[in-house]
Amino acid sequence: MTGWLAPEPTGWEPLLAQALTEDIGTGDLTAGCFDHQPVSFYIEAQAEGVVSGIGIATALFGNQLEVCSDDGEPVQAGSKLLKGCFDTRFVLAHERTALNFLMHLSGVATLTNEFVKAVQGTRARIIDTRKTLPGLRALQKYAVRCGGGTNHRMGLYDAAMIKDNHIRACGSITLAVSRLRESISHMAKIEVECENLEQVAEAAGLGVDVVMLDNMSIELMRRAVTEFPTVVFEASGGVNLKTVAGIAQTGVHYISVGALTHSAPALPIHLEFD
Amino acid sequence: MTGWLAPEPTGWEPLLAQALTEDIGTGDLTAGCFDHQPVSFYIEAQAEGVVSGIGIATALFGNQLEVCSDDGEPVQAGSKLLKGCFDTRFVLAHERTALNFLMHLSGVATLTNEFVKAVQGTRARIIDTRKTLPGLRALQKYAVRCGGGTNHRMGLYDAAMIKDNHIRACGSITLAVSRLRESISHMAKIEVECENLEQVAEAAGLGVDVVMLDNMSIELMRRAVTEFPTVVFEASGGVNLKTVAGIAQTGVHYISVGALTHSAPALPIHLEFD
Amino acid sequence: MTGWLAPEPTGWEPLLAQALTEDIGTGDLTAGCFDHQPVSFYIEAQAEGVVSGIGIATALFGNQLEVCSDDGEPVQAGSKLLKGCFDTRFVLAHERTALNFLMHLSGVATLTNEFVKAVQGTRARIIDTRKTLPGLRALQKYAVRCGGGTNHRMGLYDAAMIKDNHIRACGSITLAVSRLRESISHMAKIEVECENLEQVAEAAGLGVDVVMLDNMSIELMRRAVTEFPTVVFEASGGVNLKTVAGIAQTGVHYISVGALTHSAPALPIHLEFD
Amino acid sequence: MTGWLAPEPTGWEPLLAQALTEDIGTGDLTAGCFDHQPVSFYIEAQAEGVVSGIGIATALFGNQLEVCSDDGEPVQAGSKLLKGCFDTRFVLAHERTALNFLMHLSGVATLTNEFVKAVQGTRARIIDTRKTLPGLRALQKYAVRCGGGTNHRMGLYDAAMIKDNHIRACGSITLAVSRLRESISHMAKIEVECENLEQVAEAAGLGVDVVMLDNMSIELMRRAVTEFPTVVFEASGGVNLKTVAGIAQTGVHYISVGALTHSAPALPIHLEFD
Amino acid sequence: MTGWLAPEPTGWEPLLAQALTEDIGTGDLTAGCFDHQPVSFYIEAQAEGVVSGIGIATALFGNQLEVCSDDGEPVQAGSKLLKGCFDTRFVLAHERTALNFLMHLSGVATLTNEFVKAVQGTRARIIDTRKTLPGLRALQKYAVRCGGGTNHRMGLYDAAMIKDNHIRACGSITLAVSRLRESISHMAKIEVECENLEQVAEAAGLGVDVVMLDNMSIELMRRAVTEFPTVVFEASGGVNLKTVAGIAQTGVHYISVGALTHSAPALPIHLEFD
Amino acid sequence: MTGWLAPEPTGWEPLLAQALTEDIGTGDLTAGCFDHQPVSFYIEAQAEGVVSGIGIATALFGNQLEVCSDDGEPVQAGSKLLKGCFDTRFVLAHERTALNFLMHLSGVATLTNEFVKAVQGTRARIIDTRKTLPGLRALQKYAVRCGGGTNHRMGLYDAAMIKDNHIRACGSITLAVSRLRESISHMAKIEVECENLEQVAEAAGLGVDVVMLDNMSIELMRRAVTEFPTVVFEASGGVNLKTVAGIAQTGVHYISVGALTHSAPALPIHLEFD
Repeated sequence: MTGWLAPEPTGWEPLLAQALTEDIGTGDLTAGCFDHQPVSFYIEAQAEGVVSGIGIATALFGNQLEVCSDDGEPVQAGSKLLKGCFDTRFVLAHERTALNFLMHLSGVATLTNEFVKAVQGTRARIIDTRKTLPGLRALQKYAVRCGGGTNHRMGLYDAAMIKDNHIRACGSITLAVSRLRESISHMAKIEVECENLEQVAEAAGLGVDVVMLDNMSIELMRRAVTEFPTVVFEASGGVNLKTVAGIAQTGVHYISVGALTHSAPALPIHLEFD
Repeated sequence: MTGWLAPEPTGWEPLLAQALTEDIGTGDLTAGCFDHQPVSFYIEAQAEGVVSGIGIATALFGNQLEVCSDDGEPVQAGSKLLKGCFDTRFVLAHERTALNFLMHLSGVATLTNEFVKAVQGTRARIIDTRKTLPGLRALQKYAVRCGGGTNHRMGLYDAAMIKDNHIRACGSITLAVSRLRESISHMAKIEVECENLEQVAEAAGLGVDVVMLDNMSIELMRRAVTEFPTVVFEASGGVNLKTVAGIAQTGVHYISVGALTHSAPALPIHLEFD
Repeated sequence: MTGWLAPEPTGWEPLLAQALTEDIGTGDLTAGCFDHQPVSFYIEAQAEGVVSGIGIATALFGNQLEVCSDDGEPVQAGSKLLKGCFDTRFVLAHERTALNFLMHLSGVATLTNEFVKAVQGTRARIIDTRKTLPGLRALQKYAVRCGGGTNHRMGLYDAAMIKDNHIRACGSITLAVSRLRESISHMAKIEVECENLEQVAEAAGLGVDVVMLDNMSIELMRRAVTEFPTVVFEASGGVNLKTVAGIAQTGVHYISVGALTHSAPALPIHLEFD
Repeated sequence: MTGWLAPEPTGWEPLLAQALTEDIGTGDLTAGCFDHQPVSFYIEAQAEGVVSGIGIATALFGNQLEVCSDDGEPVQAGSKLLKGCFDTRFVLAHERTALNFLMHLSGVATLTNEFVKAVQGTRARIIDTRKTLPGLRALQKYAVRCGGGTNHRMGLYDAAMIKDNHIRACGSITLAVSRLRESISHMAKIEVECENLEQVAEAAGLGVDVVMLDNMSIELMRRAVTEFPTVVFEASGGVNLKTVAGIAQTGVHYISVGALTHSAPALPIHLEFD
Repeated sequence: MTGWLAPEPTGWEPLLAQALTEDIGTGDLTAGCFDHQPVSFYIEAQAEGVVSGIGIATALFGNQLEVCSDDGEPVQAGSKLLKGCFDTRFVLAHERTALNFLMHLSGVATLTNEFVKAVQGTRARIIDTRKTLPGLRALQKYAVRCGGGTNHRMGLYDAAMIKDNHIRACGSITLAVSRLRESISHMAKIEVECENLEQVAEAAGLGVDVVMLDNMSIELMRRAVTEFPTVVFEASGGVNLKTVAGIAQTGVHYISVGALTHSAPALPIHLEFD
Repeated sequence: MTGWLAPEPTGWEPLLAQALTEDIGTGDLTAGCFDHQPVSFYIEAQAEGVVSGIGIATALFGNQLEVCSDDGEPVQAGSKLLKGCFDTRFVLAHERTALNFLMHLSGVATLTNEFVKAVQGTRARIIDTRKTLPGLRALQKYAVRCGGGTNHRMGLYDAAMIKDNHIRACGSITLAVSRLRESISHMAKIEVECENLEQVAEAAGLGVDVVMLDNMSIELMRRAVTEFPTVVFEASGGVNLKTVAGIAQTGVHYISVGALTHSAPALPIHLEFD
């Protein structure tokens, strides 16, 4: 049972089918120059990174590939990820789709892992956002976990986040929170986005589950953490590989990074015949 | 009729529905703190780039947004893309999905445009590959066109490409081409991937539509272009913003760049209330 | 903007289409004895209860029905819910589907409301479970809210619940909780199912978000509430309209009732021509 | 080949997939506290009733469960329905969905069977209606058969039923029937809903396939049966477990009961580890 | 309200979407040589026949075409069917799909009408079979009605037909019918396929709804009709435009013709700009 | 690996599922007179023709049929196509769907082959058009290949065709071609429809990939071929089995025939029990 870290994402099968459809369409025109014949092949990383997507690639080949480097494992240029032996026509028609998944998800895992390493030694955990690519959210968030990150809410439906616009429309954080608590499930957490320490104090007083420090200076974040020691804090805004360590050292619990899912470069991976 | 350059991509509506589903799921938990009330808003670029995806964003809002910067247009930080006035609950529930499309597609268009600018003054055109993100191929390839690029084949089904593995399995380029010509449509073009000048000569002699120079040195590409003046050439491999101008100066007709679609960083774009 | 209480459920359109398909199939055979002609009609409750599903019924008629009794409102036998005027063929082909939604969802809301009334004067809130009918979960849980209830988690994906089998497989509550906290989102709550006070003490010590008292006696529930005054408790098991008041008086915060969604009788509702 | 009585329902696979999706969604959050390990379990009735849905539950477990009590069989509290041994994560993620199908369908079969028993000794057969739950019609109608009932038409498409509103719009039963016979298939039966003996006489004279006695008194139904001995009659309206025997003794052939499918309480069933 | 004869077929919208997808795919490559501009056009028959499919063609153009010749009407070469004025790109991208539906369905209606005319003066009605083209059954059967034919059962689900293989497997017609009557709905008709007069006598004695005379000689069919004057007969096998009148004169009630739906040539129809 | 000629069509699985659904619907009503029991059967041609669709029929039976006559092979009345042994209920429920595919696709292949034979001895190849039946394009075009034909473009998306209406809207062939070349992929071919020799000359001068001679006389076609010896020509319009040989003798390279896909009569095929 290799290929997925728990909790295992589900529901990606239609995307896999769609990815095959958009590549193969009405049929592989070049297949006609081949006879059906078996070929041994392997899939190999061409750069250093962290692997994600092995479960999809194996599903694509009927769960009959040998897994050499599993999800969450670090690889080097030349590390083998998977090995198999299949009909040549099948391999050539499915190669690109398998690689497109592996290269993107491993790219997300790899970038996440760079952020995770950058905050080692602090209590901060790197988390993702809802800034994901259309159709890829569940898999991208899984890849974040493969890279050592933690997931923020999956979407608008599994946790509540009161942002500046909500506050403006309601009149105050207090009103927004009290109205929310009337309607939503007791199993859903509530986070409030704060832009200054007055807002942090108000949110803290209401006992919300998480307080987001939105685009605050290092100094202000440090004060928030110090003055409200029982509050769980998320830092957001202006986070990159140069700034993240400094942010982590303020003592915030979570640092959210949109780039993990909207700007991760692919990890180069290719498929070779033996 | 704004929002799309011709030929207009089609079939993206299910992806839009899916993107909404993965964000909204069983309902926006935070909506309960709001009443229904109209709000004026705009969508704005936060960095320099080229726009793509306006047609999707307007579709998301019932084709009732005012278009300020259309697909293919250059923008600066602060350029408005779209304006509208809708129910606040609707705007907050659809904002993230609209931005996720716009940020990614404009990111692809922007990166493409950087490559296009880098080869200005040569006859080379920048083209994409099949290294696209699962589910996003048609839109990504459209975004490449918004950035001034040209599309390679959409998939395995609309043109034939004989690669090293096909050649190995068939025995020779000549055999592969002749077998292909027996079965495929006379309306489909055939490209052959070549690794040396002997292969180029063989492919050229067969009158194939395009010859790909795969990972060749600048010197070798220049010789191919010179020795086979009637052949249409595509350069592939090792292309980045530093190398692309040199490759273009060899005289090749097309330069394919996988990064356009697998590694384009998002163009930052946000939605603001007036 | 009537027809839905916030947070509004989403994603029910395919079920509506499917319900129409399973009734109309390849066409209404009886329609042939009619000409196209408009008819005024109304939809009316035939018994006392609480309404749910108005948003679906109005969607079925192109959002052109007049709403007389909205979701969450109490009705009597003879109360009108909706009024409209449409083509007779359309009305007769869509009547049954509209009523099937309204009768079931109003049935769920009505049963929920009976439980809610039974615990008035205590702090206990009535909550639902995952014991829902296939394909109807989101709508049934919405109907529970229409009846004055509160939702438990939507499914396995938006909150964690450690049950007896999880505990057995892990060795202890403590191990189960600590393993979970390594992998899941910080935005997801954790509930632990306890069968005795020792387990309650262990779960309370771990600071889990909710403790479920599973099939405990009234006396034991009262002791749990008294001995762990800061813990949020859910009572579960053996809950019916006769026992629920006594359970509520123990001081538990939430009482879950499977029957709300697996055994609610329909509220009788019919459609009449003027 | 156990699990389904003939004619076997088809087309329920998407509902099964949807039921899993609405429960598991983006993944079972609690699965992370478990390793993959096999577990033996059984599914057991907790009350007396009639089984339905075994075919779905076995499909959910890859058709690898041992069937102890098949569809249509009577069970007692403690009767085992199914046994199996699977990976614990899989069992816990699929348990609720399997039980939700079994509890509802067995609930429908059980309620149907109570009506069937109540008319034993008469020629009346218990039949269902189109008052089904959205998305569940084919399975509910199958469950009715498991309980010993007979199916009425599946929907508007497989038989014609001329109701009061059709008659009013056409002018008369005679006109409605003659217009219908011009357009519909000769393979489709026609039933006419009658509210008095004059209408029965008119419908009988036209040779329609079935005459429905709508909300008639016992006395009137008896007269209809006596005066039109060659007509096939369906009684409808005001049918419950107290009234059904009396209705059956009038000699009607079919008695339709909406409650079978819109108000059947679940049969309690649970899954236990050995 | 033009475009469909009652009972109106339903559920064809996905096929329309699919037909557009298989023609337009990722976009109309030739559209780029056009600007958006309105154009007046009409759709015209190029041969004599009977129209079917107007409802689909109008749906394709947003229900904004003017209907000149409606479903079921006879047309000549040069008869206009529809007129409209739309954006040129839209017209050219949708033209082929509209014509493909109209040409095929009108072809079926036209062929049916030839058979219907051939049996005029007899009581025989022309009916279709289950020998339809994949995905097109409901529309083809509707086209048969447009041509003046009557529908046989839609599929295996709305009526029962006991064929030679069923009889062989059961042992006798009597056993097959009695077993069927135990399980199927009282609203479903039963037809028995007979190869000789002994079988006809057996089926007639059981009171089945329809008796099919399978590949019998004219003489044998005449004897069946004469000897069993209360039975409803369907003739099947060896039916073509030359033989159908003779078959009709035997007195059979229905004559089924597979060619209506599996071998109807298209009616030529084209779209012209004004 | 039998059942498909390369390039193998893909994406037909949903159509197969849909065809089963439209035949079986909510269940085979006649199945109830049968027990589950295995039966040996074969599928046999009842007339001379060319086979197509074996891959679909075998897929329908779980790829467990023995193939006797594969796609593209000629058969006679009495030739066996496939053999197998399955559960009788399964065979009777799937028989019609399998035959409907085989009869239609083999019908297309057979008609194509008649055209192919009629042009033997010339260089002309028979090609199909976009005049296909809704939902069946990819399979019909595959059947054309089975019959020895060649495919024209699959749809509007994989090649460009400039027709009379495009030319009129653009002003000239030259403008249309130059505008097209700005936007479309370099991998897409361009064909121009010409009605006279002046247009042929203009198109030839632009170096377009194919020139279509639209409804020209034999004489005019011959002149075009003679005067433009380097151009690839397609003849279109007025093609039937009587005219095709004469057209082929003009020297055109391709002759397109709409009837192949819009008017091919079914090849009679049936399924028999041993």
